[in-house]
Amino acid sequence: MKNIKLIIEYDGTNYYGWQKQNDKVTIQGTLEEAVRNLTKEENEILGCSRTDSGVHARGFVATFKTESTVPPHKFREAINYRLPDDIVILSSEEVSEDFHPRYLAKGKTYEYTIYNNLVPTALNRLYSYHYKYSLDIEVMKNACHFFKGTHDFKAFRSEGSSVKTTVRTIYDVNIKIDGDFIKISVSGDGFLYNMVRIIVGTLINVGRGKITPEDIEKIILGRDRKAAGDCVPAKGLKLTEVYY
Amino acid sequence: MKNIKLIIEYDGTNYYGWQKQNDKVTIQGTLEEAVRNLTKEENEILGCSRTDSGVHARGFVATFKTESTVPPHKFREAINYRLPDDIVILSSEEVSEDFHPRYLAKGKTYEYTIYNNLVPTALNRLYSYHYKYSLDIEVMKNACHFFKGTHDFKAFRSEGSSVKTTVRTIYDVNIKIDGDFIKISVSGDGFLYNMVRIIVGTLINVGRGKITPEDIEKIILGRDRKAAGDCVPAKGLKLTEVYY
Repeated sequence: MKNIKLIIEYDGTNYYGWQKQNDKVTIQGTLEEAVRNLTKEENEILGCSRTDSGVHARGFVATFKTESTVPPHKFREAINYRLPDDIVILSSEEVSEDFHPRYLAKGKTYEYTIYNNLVPTALNRLYSYHYKYSLDIEVMKNACHFFKGTHDFKAFRSEGSSVKTTVRTIYDVNIKIDGDFIKISVSGDGFLYNMVRIIVGTLINVGRGKITPEDIEKIILGRDRKAAGDCVPAKGLKLTEVYY
Repeated sequence: MKNIKLIIEYDGTNYYGWQKQNDKVTIQGTLEEAVRNLTKEENEILGCSRTDSGVHARGFVATFKTESTVPPHKFREAINYRLPDDIVILSSEEVSEDFHPRYLAKGKTYEYTIYNNLVPTALNRLYSYHYKYSLDIEVMKNACHFFKGTHDFKAFRSEGSSVKTTVRTIYDVNIKIDGDFIKISVSGDGFLYNMVRIIVGTLINVGRGKITPEDIEKIILGRDRKAAGDCVPAKGLKLTEVYY
């Protein structure tokens, strides 16, 4: 039995997120169908994360076990051939049998894209959040380091999933400007439900002058969801890297 | 009667090109419906170009005449409100009554995007042409200037539209690299049917070493469509600017 690791890029626009659901088209379900169609086995696909409906990925890691004789690096093309073109396997390789894409992940990086212009964009509408009010980027940059470190991020979690602890470690928060696009990358050991999108919503509040960078410390300590910013739309979010 | 000039961005993926057609969803038809819905008049929209099915634009120029009392710069928001989100009016203003977006255009710039990687892309699939073989970019750059100037571009035209002359002037051809994306911009006073896409197909032949940069001169002089490269897919093409 081989354990095959896939690195995957997908456009989440037309999917109800990663996780398999009855009667709903999901990334995991679509991928499983393609793999089973190839191997004629009942493979189960394990994913590194349960991305929400509409969230994108480039660098998503998944595995499946198989007795197929297809050479491991050839799965990439063979599966891509069976996938719709909004899901692409970037690479495939054999890994040790105990490699688990979720339990063994040491960290992940997400990137959030804001399109900051009075007028919306047609060509980037599926991959960015249109925010029309002007933002003070320098102040937002000064706010990033307040998220870094190990904190109880209860204020930055939407209801809807049970977790043992709301303590997480953020390695880095970084803002890059590319024309009218503001790209916010967030790396950490793990994320609570909607955590990256609420961090971005809170940084927008900083950029609007509604709160100061220093207020972030208070919001973290207060552990009150209502004190943090809005949960910004899924389509601006992309999982970019998983670390092991 | 006011003449209103619109600058438009659109994602051509779901449209049968610019020009109105019975029973087919086009940019012009969709825009006309939105404008008429606003003004309650029978406005006709004039466009700067008839982009093909699947071609995108950012900087497309169109006009319509109206007796509406909406202030000219307010048409932007009022029309956007009535448009699907893959067509966006970037600006609106009043221009002189004899301004014609097509007849008065002195030149246009198109940009063509090639995604040059062995593996396709999910997230940019709608806006680039996936070309998996390696290309010699330096040689392609050396080939660009052979297109410049006033030439008979009969070899770079698909059949399907009648024109008085196949002579056109190319102002500039330029190649920029952005990671795995190759962006080829072509400026000229006007373009024959599929001309930019055939120029790009010919540059790909140069990048593959099938022809030399100097061969472009011979292909132009030979006026034989079969000597030029393939017409690459529409989805990589974007009209970016129109000059008056």
